[in-house]
Amino acid sequence: MGGYYGGMLARKGHEVHFLLNSDYDFVAANGLQVDSCNGSFRLPHVNAWRSAADMPQCDVVLVCLKTTLNRALATMLPPLLHEHTLVVLIQNGIGPEYDLQAIFPHLNIAAGLAFICSAKIGPGHIDHQCYGNINIAPYGNADKAIVRQVVDDLKASGVGAALTGYDEARWKKAVWNMPFNGMTVVLDTRTDRLLACPSTLQLVRGQMSEVIGAARALGVEGIDEAFADKMIRNTLAMKPYSPSMKLDYDNRRPMEIYYLYTRPIAEARRAGFDMPRLSMLEAELKFIQERYADK
Amino acid sequence: MGGYYGGMLARKGHEVHFLLNSDYDFVAANGLQVDSCNGSFRLPHVNAWRSAADMPQCDVVLVCLKTTLNRALATMLPPLLHEHTLVVLIQNGIGPEYDLQAIFPHLNIAAGLAFICSAKIGPGHIDHQCYGNINIAPYGNADKAIVRQVVDDLKASGVGAALTGYDEARWKKAVWNMPFNGMTVVLDTRTDRLLACPSTLQLVRGQMSEVIGAARALGVEGIDEAFADKMIRNTLAMKPYSPSMKLDYDNRRPMEIYYLYTRPIAEARRAGFDMPRLSMLEAELKFIQERYADK
Repeated sequence: MGGYYGGMLARKGHEVHFLLNSDYDFVAANGLQVDSCNGSFRLPHVNAWRSAADMPQCDVVLVCLKTTLNRALATMLPPLLHEHTLVVLIQNGIGPEYDLQAIFPHLNIAAGLAFICSAKIGPGHIDHQCYGNINIAPYGNADKAIVRQVVDDLKASGVGAALTGYDEARWKKAVWNMPFNGMTVVLDTRTDRLLACPSTLQLVRGQMSEVIGAARALGVEGIDEAFADKMIRNTLAMKPYSPSMKLDYDNRRPMEIYYLYTRPIAEARRAGFDMPRLSMLEAELKFIQERYADK
Repeated sequence: MGGYYGGMLARKGHEVHFLLNSDYDFVAANGLQVDSCNGSFRLPHVNAWRSAADMPQCDVVLVCLKTTLNRALATMLPPLLHEHTLVVLIQNGIGPEYDLQAIFPHLNIAAGLAFICSAKIGPGHIDHQCYGNINIAPYGNADKAIVRQVVDDLKASGVGAALTGYDEARWKKAVWNMPFNGMTVVLDTRTDRLLACPSTLQLVRGQMSEVIGAARALGVEGIDEAFADKMIRNTLAMKPYSPSMKLDYDNRRPMEIYYLYTRPIAEARRAGFDMPRLSMLEAELKFIQERYADK
């Protein structure tokens, strides 16, 4: 995610600094290769960093970490921040901005909702298969002018980007994320197979209704049952797809259960709305997570 | 099941006829061996039959088939029946007696609720590990005097047996059966592991509440939340256990989804009661069943 969006911006001459983990040595020496459905490109030299502590202050920080690592943000972010820095959490789930704002009360924060199929297929090697749009949603008192600038910069760099409302964007994404991420793990399958079986198609559609009901109970407007029908149609039209949680599961990485399930379910419950099917899915995922953590 | 209960009755001198499938040749030649926690025994000669069509009329028929084979009863039963024959369905789920009565309107039918851990471990070789009680519940207009006689004969043969009310007995069994059968399949696990994880313990307990709510909505009395707590305690005290549906799944036999899930869920829905978690479990099981049917 960071390789693709950062790469697109760097290609257009923006000053982009990449914080890398296991790929640091390779990328520092060889740069980035982005294979993209919209045209592949290579960046032979990029600003690569091994540690956030050494990085310069930045106007915009695109956080492309898994939410399971968010506790690291409290120490990673400070060196990067100046008074007007915007931190965009390109992450899954409900609530990460709230928790980040609690640590940095005056920080400009936005949610990044990426609609993209991409994966890292080797060191410094990104495979961007399809889609790629990103919606940026200012959170709380974030400076909207800065967010608008980021959206414009992304657009000018060839990325489909738009400014959207925070709650609606996060919950709209949850309509797809909550059913498909967990169900593909529990049934060890793909989106197309879930929808090919009438029983699980109906279940997924019912789970989507739970998300819509939760959003409504929390006062989030603009998400109706027709939106869920559209998500089903879009998914049927997609190539067979393994959501990010399924990839995490297959690679025995921790799953993002907290922000994808526990947190939205808890928020809905506080608003008096029960999500029985998605609570059941959360429990099944926790069982699976515990089992493979034991091995 | 048939080997154990039939064997216990035959040992005490009752005239028992065994209808066998793949074990016919072996049992006709060698009889039955019952390894039992209450004392093992061998029956060197039993009345073994390969086809119901050749069997004599019987006073009592203990049906120990999987419900997935119940459509065979319409042709298997008639040769065995006289005017007063009692057919006891020692089966799982909700509804098999109703469907059998629709085919044989004047037949005496009872439900047999077996609380037993036993398995066939070889041709004509039964391993009865523990428990073994059976409750017999007369269905509809079944002749209670005959049912009482069967209960007495079982008791006199060393089987803990009791006469119980039909609806309460079937739904009480469903309180245990509906959560544990399906969940051990979907999460590919055992009862003890489900209960060791706090998330799935809470889920199973919630699923039990759905069964209790359904029973109540259908006017079945005598099953309260304390009964569910007792089922959890009993299961915690049991040895690690794979319910019959898990054994069917492991051996790639059809699972009893219809009478264990589809039917009770539909009956509850007709009474205006929704079972969201168990409906979800039903959908997951149908997905799994379809997947392995394809292989």
